[in-house]
Amino acid sequence: MTTPTTLQEAYTAIMEKNKELTIAESAGAILYWDMETKMPPKAVNLRSQQLALLQKIFHRMQTDPEIGNLITQINTHPDQATLDQQQQRNVHLSKKNYDEMTKLPEDLVVETTKQIALTINVWKKAKAAQDYAAYRPDLEKLFDLRVKAAEILMDVKGTSTPYDALIDIHEPGVNANTISTLFTPMRDGLIKIIDKIRDSPEPDTDFLRRRIPIETQREISEAIAAEIGYDTQTENAGGRIDETEHPFTVGYYDDVRITTHYYEERFESSVFSVLHEGGHALYEQNLPAEWIYQPIGLASSSGIHESQSRMVENIIGRSPELWSSLYPKLQSLVNGALSDTTVDQFVRGINRVKPSKIRVEADEVTYGLHIIIRFEVEQDLYTGKISMDELPQIWNQKYEKYLGVEIENDSEGVMQDTHWAGGSYGYFPSYALGNIYSGMMLDKMTADIPDWKEGLTSQGFSQVGGWLKENIHSHGNLHDPVDLMKEITGKNLTVKPFISYLEEKYSKLYGY
Amino acid sequence: MTTPTTLQEAYTAIMEKNKELTIAESAGAILYWDMETKMPPKAVNLRSQQLALLQKIFHRMQTDPEIGNLITQINTHPDQATLDQQQQRNVHLSKKNYDEMTKLPEDLVVETTKQIALTINVWKKAKAAQDYAAYRPDLEKLFDLRVKAAEILMDVKGTSTPYDALIDIHEPGVNANTISTLFTPMRDGLIKIIDKIRDSPEPDTDFLRRRIPIETQREISEAIAAEIGYDTQTENAGGRIDETEHPFTVGYYDDVRITTHYYEERFESSVFSVLHEGGHALYEQNLPAEWIYQPIGLASSSGIHESQSRMVENIIGRSPELWSSLYPKLQSLVNGALSDTTVDQFVRGINRVKPSKIRVEADEVTYGLHIIIRFEVEQDLYTGKISMDELPQIWNQKYEKYLGVEIENDSEGVMQDTHWAGGSYGYFPSYALGNIYSGMMLDKMTADIPDWKEGLTSQGFSQVGGWLKENIHSHGNLHDPVDLMKEITGKNLTVKPFISYLEEKYSKLYGY
Repeated sequence: MTTPTTLQEAYTAIMEKNKELTIAESAGAILYWDMETKMPPKAVNLRSQQLALLQKIFHRMQTDPEIGNLITQINTHPDQATLDQQQQRNVHLSKKNYDEMTKLPEDLVVETTKQIALTINVWKKAKAAQDYAAYRPDLEKLFDLRVKAAEILMDVKGTSTPYDALIDIHEPGVNANTISTLFTPMRDGLIKIIDKIRDSPEPDTDFLRRRIPIETQREISEAIAAEIGYDTQTENAGGRIDETEHPFTVGYYDDVRITTHYYEERFESSVFSVLHEGGHALYEQNLPAEWIYQPIGLASSSGIHESQSRMVENIIGRSPELWSSLYPKLQSLVNGALSDTTVDQFVRGINRVKPSKIRVEADEVTYGLHIIIRFEVEQDLYTGKISMDELPQIWNQKYEKYLGVEIENDSEGVMQDTHWAGGSYGYFPSYALGNIYSGMMLDKMTADIPDWKEGLTSQGFSQVGGWLKENIHSHGNLHDPVDLMKEITGKNLTVKPFISYLEEKYSKLYGY
Repeated sequence: MTTPTTLQEAYTAIMEKNKELTIAESAGAILYWDMETKMPPKAVNLRSQQLALLQKIFHRMQTDPEIGNLITQINTHPDQATLDQQQQRNVHLSKKNYDEMTKLPEDLVVETTKQIALTINVWKKAKAAQDYAAYRPDLEKLFDLRVKAAEILMDVKGTSTPYDALIDIHEPGVNANTISTLFTPMRDGLIKIIDKIRDSPEPDTDFLRRRIPIETQREISEAIAAEIGYDTQTENAGGRIDETEHPFTVGYYDDVRITTHYYEERFESSVFSVLHEGGHALYEQNLPAEWIYQPIGLASSSGIHESQSRMVENIIGRSPELWSSLYPKLQSLVNGALSDTTVDQFVRGINRVKPSKIRVEADEVTYGLHIIIRFEVEQDLYTGKISMDELPQIWNQKYEKYLGVEIENDSEGVMQDTHWAGGSYGYFPSYALGNIYSGMMLDKMTADIPDWKEGLTSQGFSQVGGWLKENIHSHGNLHDPVDLMKEITGKNLTVKPFISYLEEKYSKLYGY
């Protein structure tokens, strides 16, 4: 290939590399989606070979030395400063990814991949057998490999601890100190709200256990998707809804797919899965069209992503204002099965708060405490303050202390999540950061559109959806999350708006 | 990488290359399947980018100079002859593919790909507008590009004409002379049978137009798939059935998927699509497991593939012996909608022969004539005997002469198929070769299992299915089709068994 000679040529060349990589990854995402939704069961081994090969091809593309040359050429060019903000950011993100990918030794990557497969397998069996001791040795091996990677990434990312380097993968520029500063008042605020709710009468949720046929629930899903503007039905649809045990969102720009799960006697579960995943999907679909295939044409972070799913699922999706217009439609879709209930009853039911042991079943208020526990444990593991042996005990103590629940076995305790078995450390904080971000966004939205609640009742989701697109989604990955939140709200990170939102909402709902 | 030093090392290294390429292509096939079955409509441009990139990656892999080095190393090695038959064949197939891929100039490949996209687009519009003149210029451009490619491939493949080089892509080792020698008596034999049928009373087919709900037809599809051993339902299933306008089969070993189409008032259409595609699918799934990822672990040719689909769809699938046990099941699945009909009536109905204009709607007897017309036209185009201007006229004359039907416009004539618009020349003959092969296989099967028809009635498809697996599928791509047929039947190619099969079957059905 001809060596680029001008700054613009070098920039164009690196953007071509980014484009190829992005397209390849978007193709890989379809294979993943297929594996989870449609693949014949016998294909499992063939598929793992396909995914491993793709991984290898992506790695080759990401570590192509030509990328390194182009970055050096651009960053040492006398006119480098003439690149505009978007171009600078694209180069920055390219360099960060290249540095990370090239610094990790291939041996370590291969060994980690193998150990993840092993650990996941052991985890499944140990969880079924409620046997943490059988899981611990592999968990520890994988943990040690992640420490090694974290120590290498520390240099590249310029973080001051290995754990911070892992957090940076999911939440660039955020570190454990920042998180502690936010999570401490969050924990106290949440516990205070939960204490008040504990002293109030429980709302009725029996009617939510009524049997709604799966076929009807599928219609409800499509209707809700349409309501929030996530198009799965028209001839220009860029989405679709399928079924998996654990709902997820996958895709890129014009092809973003969500999944949900249906339980005959828990119809609301799918309603809120569709709203949650729909929130993720809208973010991806609303990224600026002109940034497609560029590093800036991606979400800013896992936490910002989570802010979008939680805003749509909880702040909007569990609000009385949305359901005052939507509930009659739902009542009609279920053919009278809910005709003796009121929207007020429904809104109270779907907002019931009750401390529980399992994170993925937690409500909007207690959820944060599940995350805070995981963060505190991860941090102590990485500083060596606690060992893998002590993990279950520490876990159970924190659940007792923060949530007031007693963990009876490790399957409903420290072994409930797949993340650590999959080598993901530093990921959990993003979930609660998503709550914190969503509170700050809510404040700004309320300042911009003081009557957005009335709009929600009278016009449905479109006004709020438009605000999210214009004020959040339109920024793509132009900023790391802290800067992005400053850009959007003018403020530094703060947990206050989220806690105030909960206090106001739940004092009303529970009448305390 | 370390240069391999021994013959065995070189062989292992080239097989590793083959494995990667095969896995990559099998992944690409899933993206194609998704595009045709599940993809949200908005994703069309993103998907074409993904497929184009994969094409580029495959091309890089296929033309990796290391492959050329390894082949030379193996073929010039003093112990080369110590490789066994399977290894020799793997090296031969690797070399053939490498030579073909490296000899075609990249410019030509890129230009052809672009011209195909253009021509397909123009073809769709011209077909809708019944306007051949609007289609001709692009068709001609693409034809010229294919001639260029054919001239280059002639050398690599050692064929004596460019057209033979294109035939060799689909039917290795078969040339236009061989095809003519087979198609001339086939044409005469088919016309003779059709003439006799034309003079006989037409069977009743009105009851086949009864309305069967799509949901019921889906159940029928799954039942028929199960009947032939194409597993789409169990926890070890390696197949699945989806819906597309044009049915197809795609996949590899443990993940082979078929599609069908449902028409409420033509329920038998889907029955025979499932049998046809199921025949293809069984071939892929039954390839020897130990040959996975090797060049010999593939089908031998398009024609051999077609022999399997036609054997299952027509020879077995439209036989009175199969339906004598299956028809009562079908009658029960459709809830009485066919209770006033007999299996005899059904078998006559599904075997109605009637010359028509459209290839994909043709019956088992007239189908071959549609193919023979296309072959004769292609051959004359490539020898320059006819021009693109004359194409519609020649086409219509042949349809009048061979099938006795009058083509009223080019949309139901020369523009009906997508093949030429897609640059596929030399492909059509494989369809009729499939018929010829299937006749020869039938002869051999009858010699091996004289009472296979009784077995079909008493035990269902399993005995025939077992014979196909053991005698056809087990050979994979160990031989080119002519040699494979010799290996299977001990005979050179001959159209006689196929014609005899038709004569016997239809003289009985039509009572002439």
